[in-house]
Amino acid sequence: MIEIIGPLVHAGEATRIGADTQPASLQKQLIERLQQAILGGRLPPGSLLPSSRLLAAEMGVSRNTVVIAYEHLAAVGYVFADQKGTRVSPLSSSTSRDDEPTACATAPEVAYAARVGQFAATRTHADNTFPLTPGTPALDRFPLTAWRRALERSMEHALPVALGYGEPTGEPALRDAIAAHLRMARGVRCEGAQVVITEGAQEALNLCVRLFTNPGDIAWVEDPGYRGAKAAFNLGDLRTLPVPVDAEGMAARSDAWLTQPPKLIYTSPAHQYPTGAVLSVARRLALIAQARRSGAWLIEDDYDGEFRHTGEPIASMQGLVDDAPVLYVGSFSKTMFPALRIGFVVLPRAIAGHTAVALQEMLRGGHRLEQLALARFIGSGEFGRHLGRMRRLYRERQQALRDALAQYFARAQVLGGDCGMHLTLRLPPGLNDRSLVARALAEGLNPRALSSFALQPDASTNGLVIGYGNTPAERLAPAIQTLAALAREMDGKGAQAKGALKARPKQPH
Amino acid sequence: MIEIIGPLVHAGEATRIGADTQPASLQKQLIERLQQAILGGRLPPGSLLPSSRLLAAEMGVSRNTVVIAYEHLAAVGYVFADQKGTRVSPLSSSTSRDDEPTACATAPEVAYAARVGQFAATRTHADNTFPLTPGTPALDRFPLTAWRRALERSMEHALPVALGYGEPTGEPALRDAIAAHLRMARGVRCEGAQVVITEGAQEALNLCVRLFTNPGDIAWVEDPGYRGAKAAFNLGDLRTLPVPVDAEGMAARSDAWLTQPPKLIYTSPAHQYPTGAVLSVARRLALIAQARRSGAWLIEDDYDGEFRHTGEPIASMQGLVDDAPVLYVGSFSKTMFPALRIGFVVLPRAIAGHTAVALQEMLRGGHRLEQLALARFIGSGEFGRHLGRMRRLYRERQQALRDALAQYFARAQVLGGDCGMHLTLRLPPGLNDRSLVARALAEGLNPRALSSFALQPDASTNGLVIGYGNTPAERLAPAIQTLAALAREMDGKGAQAKGALKARPKQPH
Repeated sequence: MIEIIGPLVHAGEATRIGADTQPASLQKQLIERLQQAILGGRLPPGSLLPSSRLLAAEMGVSRNTVVIAYEHLAAVGYVFADQKGTRVSPLSSSTSRDDEPTACATAPEVAYAARVGQFAATRTHADNTFPLTPGTPALDRFPLTAWRRALERSMEHALPVALGYGEPTGEPALRDAIAAHLRMARGVRCEGAQVVITEGAQEALNLCVRLFTNPGDIAWVEDPGYRGAKAAFNLGDLRTLPVPVDAEGMAARSDAWLTQPPKLIYTSPAHQYPTGAVLSVARRLALIAQARRSGAWLIEDDYDGEFRHTGEPIASMQGLVDDAPVLYVGSFSKTMFPALRIGFVVLPRAIAGHTAVALQEMLRGGHRLEQLALARFIGSGEFGRHLGRMRRLYRERQQALRDALAQYFARAQVLGGDCGMHLTLRLPPGLNDRSLVARALAEGLNPRALSSFALQPDASTNGLVIGYGNTPAERLAPAIQTLAALAREMDGKGAQAKGALKARPKQPH
Repeated sequence: MIEIIGPLVHAGEATRIGADTQPASLQKQLIERLQQAILGGRLPPGSLLPSSRLLAAEMGVSRNTVVIAYEHLAAVGYVFADQKGTRVSPLSSSTSRDDEPTACATAPEVAYAARVGQFAATRTHADNTFPLTPGTPALDRFPLTAWRRALERSMEHALPVALGYGEPTGEPALRDAIAAHLRMARGVRCEGAQVVITEGAQEALNLCVRLFTNPGDIAWVEDPGYRGAKAAFNLGDLRTLPVPVDAEGMAARSDAWLTQPPKLIYTSPAHQYPTGAVLSVARRLALIAQARRSGAWLIEDDYDGEFRHTGEPIASMQGLVDDAPVLYVGSFSKTMFPALRIGFVVLPRAIAGHTAVALQEMLRGGHRLEQLALARFIGSGEFGRHLGRMRRLYRERQQALRDALAQYFARAQVLGGDCGMHLTLRLPPGLNDRSLVARALAEGLNPRALSSFALQPDASTNGLVIGYGNTPAERLAPAIQTLAALAREMDGKGAQAKGALKARPKQPH
């Protein structure tokens, strides 16, 4: 046998096996060698293995080692025992790489799901820490000490029980805390029982798709609009209808309700992403009325409504009328921090109960300590104080950004800013936003191209989405100055774009 | 106006508004009252509002308060300004509850996704802490101190950066740590670049569905088998083909490859869930060869292979041959704790790169501190030591359970136990497993009905899945004694089932 399976490596011998293992136990080695010899055909099916006594002597191991090895090989079916002794089982050898192509060694031939092809390449996460990144909050201003205290407290009170499975829909304490906060801060009409905790807003969107749509259904999205909504609809194999956006927000053509009736409508009423338009109350009421008539569901993504900078907060669409067919989606990625990955959807009162069984199968509870800590953080008022501090901070930063834009992009139109952490800058047609963004990234700046949010890009979606949440006020002017320099450089090159940045009338809105 | 919108509540007045708010600012109150009056039709479209000076005097607030309130109402489109002054906008009143039925007030009429109806009611999470629960590890034996230390360390080293977005596929440090562990402990052939961190094994299953199947595709599942796999296939609108299970694990009929060719095959080779069969090497090789030929993917769910109780661990199917078309899925829910919600899928080397774009859209990074802490926990050897301790603990508990079953269910057949934290007990046909489980739950015991894991229940799937992971050895005998008493009680009632538990020959396997 030893010439077939080779000698074993005894403890203490310097030889190393494989990449990163110490010499395994003799028993384990023996099992592996025999398996390899059988799989490799060096020990053909039906061949009789030596008795445990003989093999033990030959390999220099205890007989018991061989007996256990044979038992193990028999348990998995490599060998079987008959009157004569231990024999190699008949195994199909058709798996050796040489005989036939493998499914996945030839990756281009792999049949992926159709939806996989629908995904457009996106940016890596790495640049999310760069200045001007939209959607990233001021991580260095997050009250870590208070948060760690809340975590400590929930560890002290909830362990070890909170190590176990939790409610699929999330910790009741957190659901109640969120409901109370939303009633007061966002005018949402809800109780904790309507709140479903999700893995960030993205899972909330996926959940809406899973609950209310079948493959091939039509879903409306704002255009330009949030990429995550398109991704969720794509994952659900929905047909996506782009709905244009103007100064009053999503502008649905009334005939579309008949020609392309939606099952789901994605909208961001408080601060349209990325144009920053506020959905007018007339349109909110019309959407609600039409959705009711046609049995469609409105997804209200209130992604940054907490950071209202001008006057009183604009109440949610969900709370505008009783029992609106609205799925209110939110997240703590901006109000707390992105890596927390806690989002939620508020289901209409009347269906919260009916969806319980499906939710049990779709969701797993978990991250209970984080959820309990967040409930504590909200209940203690820390969350509200943090929001207040960030509101003031983002207001300052937005003003600094506006000043810089006024100085360096005097002629360009600035959109949005009533809420949140970004402004949108329209660029003249001659100046390609994606090229500018690529050059900016090379300079360590991370604005996004407005056109990358558009399903049907045109002159009105040529621009920059500029975040100020994670960028100190004093760094904004230099950053915008750099952007302007890059723009002028490109402008100088682009022939028919000459003077694009200079005295050019505003685009009509 | 005051008779239309009512008086405002000034600070200090005891009156409370609504459920849980202190009197809001006068400005906020004024905005809300005017909005309600407009929405309620008490201020009809086109009607002229009093000048800010007049209204201020009437309501007893500063003029500025009214000016800001009007500005806010104009911003959202409740009112507009003309030469005469501030007028109420024309709003569709068709949203008041009385005119028409609402979509979600009449919940039974709500059109849910077809898949929602496919979900069967499951148990609540609450009983997962009861004795005999399958799948719940020994939470009280988890090394909390070492884990909290690992968390502390990653907080000290990684904050505040780790508050931000992370790699969608997970922290590289954790992916590498998992790859190294799987190579050594499970014989998986992988590098960190092939490992995708998921929200528990469930998201890993969903990910396999999203990447490789289209709605209507066929997926094979073990029957009886893991409910989560059926849920994932159901979410992907796949057609599920139940494949019977015997003593050698999943037993696929060879003609099914032609008549019902699968895109995905779910299997638990190390320890079939719930019967505990070990998939024989002949079947592993045949599955791999057939999957390659037909371009199908095998999902290897190695949910408890880490806890091997008899002899050497049985290496993974993924590592059996080079580039096997296997998606290796695992989770830390049992090896660490369920609420951690960290699972993973190991993609074949050749496709890991091709899926990057889709994965960026499907996944969000996050829980970075927990992931970094887990990488540290594995790298420091704490994880390996914990596994060793739990292996010994579960071995003791399994023996105690076997002894109790031998004493109280002498005639019934016991399946599985080579790995993991549960044994499966076959019950005689006369004794309905679901009724027994219902009575057990009333006694605070939480075994599961074997038939609840079956798509095609029959006599062979009448039994109990009994967990010992979360139940101290000394509590097992009393628990089983209680079960036996309940069984005898039912047996006594069930006429044609008389004596079912007594000298009855074993069921053929």
